[in-house]
Amino acid sequence: MSDVKRLTAPVAPGGTIGILGGGQLGRMLALAAARLGLKTHIYSPPNDDAPAFQVSDAQTLAAFDDKAALTKFAEACDVVTFEWENVPVATVEHIAQTRAVYPSAKTLGVTQDRFDEKSFVTSLGLKTAPFSKIDSVNDARAIANAPAILKTRRMGYDGKGQAKVKSGDDAARAFESFKGAPCILEGFVDFEFEASVIGVRGIDGSFAAYDPPENAHGDHILRRSTVPSRLSTAQADDAKAIAKKIADALSYVGVFAVELFVMKNDGLLVNEIAPRVHNSGHWTIDACLVSQFENHIRAVAGWPLGSTERHSDAVMENLIGEEAVDWKALAAKGGALHLYGKQEIRAGRKMGHVTYITPKTSAR
Amino acid sequence: MSDVKRLTAPVAPGGTIGILGGGQLGRMLALAAARLGLKTHIYSPPNDDAPAFQVSDAQTLAAFDDKAALTKFAEACDVVTFEWENVPVATVEHIAQTRAVYPSAKTLGVTQDRFDEKSFVTSLGLKTAPFSKIDSVNDARAIANAPAILKTRRMGYDGKGQAKVKSGDDAARAFESFKGAPCILEGFVDFEFEASVIGVRGIDGSFAAYDPPENAHGDHILRRSTVPSRLSTAQADDAKAIAKKIADALSYVGVFAVELFVMKNDGLLVNEIAPRVHNSGHWTIDACLVSQFENHIRAVAGWPLGSTERHSDAVMENLIGEEAVDWKALAAKGGALHLYGKQEIRAGRKMGHVTYITPKTSAR
Repeated sequence: MSDVKRLTAPVAPGGTIGILGGGQLGRMLALAAARLGLKTHIYSPPNDDAPAFQVSDAQTLAAFDDKAALTKFAEACDVVTFEWENVPVATVEHIAQTRAVYPSAKTLGVTQDRFDEKSFVTSLGLKTAPFSKIDSVNDARAIANAPAILKTRRMGYDGKGQAKVKSGDDAARAFESFKGAPCILEGFVDFEFEASVIGVRGIDGSFAAYDPPENAHGDHILRRSTVPSRLSTAQADDAKAIAKKIADALSYVGVFAVELFVMKNDGLLVNEIAPRVHNSGHWTIDACLVSQFENHIRAVAGWPLGSTERHSDAVMENLIGEEAVDWKALAAKGGALHLYGKQEIRAGRKMGHVTYITPKTSAR
Repeated sequence: MSDVKRLTAPVAPGGTIGILGGGQLGRMLALAAARLGLKTHIYSPPNDDAPAFQVSDAQTLAAFDDKAALTKFAEACDVVTFEWENVPVATVEHIAQTRAVYPSAKTLGVTQDRFDEKSFVTSLGLKTAPFSKIDSVNDARAIANAPAILKTRRMGYDGKGQAKVKSGDDAARAFESFKGAPCILEGFVDFEFEASVIGVRGIDGSFAAYDPPENAHGDHILRRSTVPSRLSTAQADDAKAIAKKIADALSYVGVFAVELFVMKNDGLLVNEIAPRVHNSGHWTIDACLVSQFENHIRAVAGWPLGSTERHSDAVMENLIGEEAVDWKALAAKGGALHLYGKQEIRAGRKMGHVTYITPKTSAR
């Protein structure tokens, strides 16, 4: 990799932030960049609906392995980032020959593989659910602890590529249904509730984190994030410390989320790292002066980080599939309505969200 | 004018709001529309820097009297609005043959002429500074009360087209310097401070107003808006009532501002009506769940109005000309920094603003 013509941070107002992926996260990143006087250039594969195109200064519709298009895109940007954690590492490595990409290809690689990610987390002395590699049908059939969850190591999100298994035979069948893809077996953990922490780390190593929300899921999709959560002040501080430890170890640049299991004994287990802005941080648009989206843009553009302070309590509710049909009633309900500009409503598809705020009641 | 093919309100998500004018107000309107899943199409004359182009789904670069371009633009939109009060009435009337335009051409006409506007305001029983028509040099030379301010009736903003006059001879010279344009003479008023009220009225006649900010000007340009203001609760209520009276009388649709002089005897004089989102309402982006920009989009799109409630106290400071050069220091100061994406810094040009918020201390 060449370091020629990479980034001269910071990117001044009028500069262009390149974003790989054109979904709602790219769209909200573009809106946040605009507020700072920065332009965005969205790169999206042709088969995707790319609602971020509607609010960006430039658009490229090309595949993630189209090297000519990637080079041209990189040359048109001052710095590049991504809104989707499954962008191929090779794509990011190719762009990085021309422009700086934040977060790095290395970070992306670690978080794209559940086994590597959990191994990395435990290597930092942080706790996760028990896990083991499942490389073959025989490994699957021989599992010692059930029930458990079998997950493909790669390309899983919103519950895709995972199965609850009650026995070795169950695990073997699930492994085969995943077409023999390398898997990880995760032990069940008896958690009290789920939470997450949204952190941001600057190019200069500065770090900040938002108050950690409590998250409720349905059918493996986030339904609601609430802040303040049921976490104690000590637990909230612990969550932020976990986020900082992870970010520092990765020399991370940008916003990221750490999903947590809050145990009955008060301990926090790391479930997953998302190397991008995160659905459980959408409430920051309406309950903080500087949102997770703006802080991501600030970080990758080499700007000073913005305050992560909360001015209000907040509940964020996702609008999934048909729930967005009711937009007019939702618009009248007194919350902040966010719709993502997606052309087609599909079952399970994130179409928008609503944030309700109330006066701030606690500092955690 | 034909009513064929006009508006079927409300404009559903995915629909397109046309905006005449591509400056910072159009840009912030476009960002607010995007949040609601609406697209924007910006129409800007070729000689203008149009920063709203960078965040819109479609752009037309054409003159305000290019009827073919106006018709094509109107056909591509579901409803049309404007960000600049000096858009020619003929432009709006032409578009209104194809699509609904809010606010109306009639409203625009009234507010484009200082004499008509003040006559309208006084006809509602509201108070203004003393004013009279000056149609000729002889009128100017014969003025009875000085000092006073001579202003052109049309096309004035940010102090352009106005002169302080101390005598009839002064007034005659000023009238000639305005090339004989019809003028209005306004008496000085001994006000305590300046304030404004930002109101919004829906297609259905629903009305709401934000808490009125106190405004400080320098060189006729807004420098700072502060909320809560020094207005008493009764005065704040009075300001909102004035706004409602004006909006109802105009069958107004959209957001507007009424600039007020707060007199030493506690009375409120109407200084000016701005039939658009207003600089003194920029703090609503950061101190309210629904900003003036979103409420304008909601109103013209036929949506339910959003809450105008404030969650925080706020001070908004404009960044004029060279003040925006210091963006990196401003970004580190803890406020919400807004930069408008303008290509060129010029003296007196509004380049951005910063909003600082603190916990809410009062309900006015």
